[in-house]
Amino acid sequence: MAGNSFGQLFRLTTFGESHGVALGGVIDGCPAGIELDLQKIQEELDRRKPGQSAIVTQRKEPDTVEIFSGVFEGKTTGTPIGFAIRNTNQKSKDYSHIKDSYRPSHADYVYDQKYGFRDYRGGGRSSARETASRVVAGAIAKQLLSDIKITAYVSQVGALKLEKNYDQLDFSVIESNPVRCADMEMATHMEEYIKSIKKEGDTIGGVVTCVIQNVPIGLGEPVFDKLHAKLGEAMLSINAVKGFEYGSGFDGVAMKGSEHNDAYNPDGTTKTNRSGGIQGGISNGMDIYFNVAFKPVATVLQAYDTINKEGEKVTTQGKGRHDPCVVPRAVPIVEAMAALVLADYTLLARSNKI
Amino acid sequence: MAGNSFGQLFRLTTFGESHGVALGGVIDGCPAGIELDLQKIQEELDRRKPGQSAIVTQRKEPDTVEIFSGVFEGKTTGTPIGFAIRNTNQKSKDYSHIKDSYRPSHADYVYDQKYGFRDYRGGGRSSARETASRVVAGAIAKQLLSDIKITAYVSQVGALKLEKNYDQLDFSVIESNPVRCADMEMATHMEEYIKSIKKEGDTIGGVVTCVIQNVPIGLGEPVFDKLHAKLGEAMLSINAVKGFEYGSGFDGVAMKGSEHNDAYNPDGTTKTNRSGGIQGGISNGMDIYFNVAFKPVATVLQAYDTINKEGEKVTTQGKGRHDPCVVPRAVPIVEAMAALVLADYTLLARSNKI
Amino acid sequence: MAGNSFGQLFRLTTFGESHGVALGGVIDGCPAGIELDLQKIQEELDRRKPGQSAIVTQRKEPDTVEIFSGVFEGKTTGTPIGFAIRNTNQKSKDYSHIKDSYRPSHADYVYDQKYGFRDYRGGGRSSARETASRVVAGAIAKQLLSDIKITAYVSQVGALKLEKNYDQLDFSVIESNPVRCADMEMATHMEEYIKSIKKEGDTIGGVVTCVIQNVPIGLGEPVFDKLHAKLGEAMLSINAVKGFEYGSGFDGVAMKGSEHNDAYNPDGTTKTNRSGGIQGGISNGMDIYFNVAFKPVATVLQAYDTINKEGEKVTTQGKGRHDPCVVPRAVPIVEAMAALVLADYTLLARSNKI
Amino acid sequence: MAGNSFGQLFRLTTFGESHGVALGGVIDGCPAGIELDLQKIQEELDRRKPGQSAIVTQRKEPDTVEIFSGVFEGKTTGTPIGFAIRNTNQKSKDYSHIKDSYRPSHADYVYDQKYGFRDYRGGGRSSARETASRVVAGAIAKQLLSDIKITAYVSQVGALKLEKNYDQLDFSVIESNPVRCADMEMATHMEEYIKSIKKEGDTIGGVVTCVIQNVPIGLGEPVFDKLHAKLGEAMLSINAVKGFEYGSGFDGVAMKGSEHNDAYNPDGTTKTNRSGGIQGGISNGMDIYFNVAFKPVATVLQAYDTINKEGEKVTTQGKGRHDPCVVPRAVPIVEAMAALVLADYTLLARSNKI
Repeated sequence: MAGNSFGQLFRLTTFGESHGVALGGVIDGCPAGIELDLQKIQEELDRRKPGQSAIVTQRKEPDTVEIFSGVFEGKTTGTPIGFAIRNTNQKSKDYSHIKDSYRPSHADYVYDQKYGFRDYRGGGRSSARETASRVVAGAIAKQLLSDIKITAYVSQVGALKLEKNYDQLDFSVIESNPVRCADMEMATHMEEYIKSIKKEGDTIGGVVTCVIQNVPIGLGEPVFDKLHAKLGEAMLSINAVKGFEYGSGFDGVAMKGSEHNDAYNPDGTTKTNRSGGIQGGISNGMDIYFNVAFKPVATVLQAYDTINKEGEKVTTQGKGRHDPCVVPRAVPIVEAMAALVLADYTLLARSNKI
Repeated sequence: MAGNSFGQLFRLTTFGESHGVALGGVIDGCPAGIELDLQKIQEELDRRKPGQSAIVTQRKEPDTVEIFSGVFEGKTTGTPIGFAIRNTNQKSKDYSHIKDSYRPSHADYVYDQKYGFRDYRGGGRSSARETASRVVAGAIAKQLLSDIKITAYVSQVGALKLEKNYDQLDFSVIESNPVRCADMEMATHMEEYIKSIKKEGDTIGGVVTCVIQNVPIGLGEPVFDKLHAKLGEAMLSINAVKGFEYGSGFDGVAMKGSEHNDAYNPDGTTKTNRSGGIQGGISNGMDIYFNVAFKPVATVLQAYDTINKEGEKVTTQGKGRHDPCVVPRAVPIVEAMAALVLADYTLLARSNKI
Repeated sequence: MAGNSFGQLFRLTTFGESHGVALGGVIDGCPAGIELDLQKIQEELDRRKPGQSAIVTQRKEPDTVEIFSGVFEGKTTGTPIGFAIRNTNQKSKDYSHIKDSYRPSHADYVYDQKYGFRDYRGGGRSSARETASRVVAGAIAKQLLSDIKITAYVSQVGALKLEKNYDQLDFSVIESNPVRCADMEMATHMEEYIKSIKKEGDTIGGVVTCVIQNVPIGLGEPVFDKLHAKLGEAMLSINAVKGFEYGSGFDGVAMKGSEHNDAYNPDGTTKTNRSGGIQGGISNGMDIYFNVAFKPVATVLQAYDTINKEGEKVTTQGKGRHDPCVVPRAVPIVEAMAALVLADYTLLARSNKI
Repeated sequence: MAGNSFGQLFRLTTFGESHGVALGGVIDGCPAGIELDLQKIQEELDRRKPGQSAIVTQRKEPDTVEIFSGVFEGKTTGTPIGFAIRNTNQKSKDYSHIKDSYRPSHADYVYDQKYGFRDYRGGGRSSARETASRVVAGAIAKQLLSDIKITAYVSQVGALKLEKNYDQLDFSVIESNPVRCADMEMATHMEEYIKSIKKEGDTIGGVVTCVIQNVPIGLGEPVFDKLHAKLGEAMLSINAVKGFEYGSGFDGVAMKGSEHNDAYNPDGTTKTNRSGGIQGGISNGMDIYFNVAFKPVATVLQAYDTINKEGEKVTTQGKGRHDPCVVPRAVPIVEAMAALVLADYTLLARSNKI
């Protein structure tokens, strides 16, 4: 209950610090009989790993996953899938400057307050490196959900905002540019902008949009566990996320009911989709889409003032290898968390009716 | 696990349909020894109840709560607190027009798909009337959290947006205007606007802002159960909510790290609070604040086309007594859900350290 | 997490003190579409209620259940089923003698230590009256499990032990004798014995045997949540239970593997059933059977020495109306808890395979 | 929810098959600040490992645990503790004879029925090898519970039963004999008996008794999660367990209330302890003691008839290296599960009162 598990029936439990021996997790509740393509799991990890392009952190971590259990003769057995990713490039020296001081807008200070001390190396458990385990589990969830298509892309970097709806975009270009933007022209602008931010030693925020297609009707539990509530929780649990909106989102508040309502077609689909594929917390078969807001990474490569454990003012200099903008690497993480939610609700939905 | 429970240690389980015998719930895990002011519980319910002003639904429901257990000689005993609110003004006739057809952007269609049939009277379990049970539990959670101050108010109705930060506002005016806006001048505009919307037989969305003060440092579990992730889930589980953002929120994405970071004061407080009182998922002692976006109510008192169970087109007319804008009555619900999250995390935090 | 919920997918949460306003609960996760016979629920409650024969407590409680929600037009809707049983015969005066002293082998002392004070009226939450809510939920679970047959009976009272296996007994006689023994001759002996114990103002223990027939293959989760582990937990959670054994049980320890093993028939059934219908924690389709040991009721109608809150010795006299032997009324409770486990595992089993 | 987690606040999740890559687990919720003696963890594993004496299986597995996370500078950090034990002596060939047939009283048949296929090597997930992960976690729980003393010992093998109560025994001899009996004379008899059983190629059952001392008052949740109910579930989840009784247990049923009740001393302790240290599901500070019944191991080294997947009769010969009696190696497993329960309830008890 220290909050390292996610899901009720398809349940991921993770462990691991940024600079410990290994990260990893256990997936409990994965049904038996899924043919598991291990290569696809590694490919998802590679989408998240550092060093993949000039606009992300230049840290080198191979991030190779080892599966310990739960798979036999190429198929899931229904027993828990344990896995680990060893840390190989730990360079603890990089972080000695933060051992005794608190980086602004990081979790250093609250960890010390909550637990009495902390593993300060690379942020320890609070490092976004923790999300590697989520990506592994998400890659397995995706294989369970073979009919459902989950696509995320960068829709905003700083003030550069893609003003097109997802249905006007070509998803096939997402992986062909380092920003993972779904529009090549905007991708170029964003890439240039991130490079300029990096040159300043600064960082910038962004938005990831996610679209889930081919969702069956009926996923979601109607009261506290509404499908979008769990998607929101999932996204807000990703490092650096400050906001979540689905369907019409924050723009919907300025609309009248008569214009916001989605009229039905005879087959139960709707003519518009401001509901974002979910009504009353339950999927209605239309596309689910949502936006996830990421703040700028807190680690800037500039000098700054802060305090140490004794509350004394210290001046320090950000160093190490960090992402100037987190959203390109956040894309597979958003997809992974979406897949975990959908997998869990798919299993939950099996007990609705007699 | 059909999702009618909320919380891990301070846990609310609710039941009840809009037009059934009663709504209610059970609070499990409330510590023993809290002097419970039953009058305050009823007062919170009265803030949520229909018919309290000209801009909310004119339905008349006394919404009187009866406590069944868990309280003895004025204090909580540590055993579960069961309670119910009887439905007295059910007027099932009002809803006969929706028995066989699906109201656009309501849960009617997905309920039928998911469960095979539904209690169509007043929306059944999908009615926002369900939130009355949340308000009861939230009122009890507030009494557990006597040092923490939770204040919500309306900050936007349609395009009318209060552009002041919460620290520029006078919270004492919130309950003195029917909109529950924290600025009297804006409240008047909003009230007029809602009245005009009502006259059209239409509805409009809005935003509720919530501020939580005097939060101790250390609430929140660092990975999946980040404090803001659970607050987000809590808010997104409220009927009609489409978005959640905390701290700098969606505006934070356009900021650079060097401007977004909150510098420390020697005592561990921060000079700014773009983090919104939470770092790494854990409260840092600064004010927590967040925005909750509500879409316009789907029930409009206008003629509209829709489909029936057979997929045939039908034209129908919205009727009954509905809220033209949901946010004034949503204010106590947002506070209640915030209180439930804080109560739960307060108990969880007791097991952090040896 | 104060432990008033049971089950993962078919989940009961209960509330209520012996002498509070009402007892009751919420069943979450009951699938939609079950035709619910409300009369059968009341009949199960009547099997448990006080005053039904000369050998049980003469307290008079009608124990009428009111269903608040979750049922519409005679069928479950998939939404939570809330219910309550009002306390009508509270006679708090009967218990004034225990307000300040601790009855031996009751929960009085530990409640005061754990919670700081307690609702002393009739044992409060620690009263076996709490099990009425379990019987309601069990009666609903039984209707979900219409193909599975759950039968409990008294197999021992004091030293009077029924030496026949369940397959040598006639279950149809169970409800025709006040002891609920499955053998009429033994029933008469037991009844006489309980009457003599009652005359002494004393109490006596007993054993309830439960048999579950027509169980499908595949219920149970293989490691911590083995089917028999959950049945054991369920039974041990009933007031006064001191032991649980299934299949060969404690007698099995003296057997050799070569004689204990159950050989297979060609159809997968087994020639013997020392496994008790469960192998590796999973039902194998054979009858499940187990024994539940109940200690003698702690309340004896004799003078006894004990201590008060100040640790001073006090002499007191047991009074009130109590059961001289708890097992006749425990029979429907054992069945109810078995039904709750089976219902939950039936729903869980739906997510085993793709 | 496939049941590979145990505990609410101190929560173990395990993974691993007998002949897969590795076994292991994650402990979530371990408080920060515990000085962890890794050597003690390995020592507990060594108590469980095969090959430690002539009366247990002669399989050779070093069972070396690797800790991945959650420990820094010798202390727990409050973050999850991930660990694994690699399988090094897999000898899959030993099990080829069971690939297509079902061993009597094993889980082979039900696994195939439940999951559609199974990892047949060494029993896969159903192997008692799975309990190694429990022992690791239990060893950590013991270090959290440094004031509480948990001692288990063998009290019965076949019909050889130690007729002394635990308080008449010398616990210091337990680890000095291979049976782990708390009486040296009986230990010799048991050892001889197990050797003779082994020579026959047969197996025999036994009983492990566990005593928990120095338990604080107030552990346990009063209704479904009674302390003894969770202890019972924990024990029944261990492979081969058929029964659990605590305090007076099954013998208590033949006692009268007047003789069974435990009279109080002025300090709240009791003169006798038939309650077994638990009243109303809550620890009362007296010693907790219970018995766990283990059936004989199903694998006998004799020829036997069984069926294959097609339901055809096959004759096969048990082979491999198996325990003739499981209880000597079960002693540390019983202690580990007891420690997990106590650790969890210790954390839970922190939220009882304001």
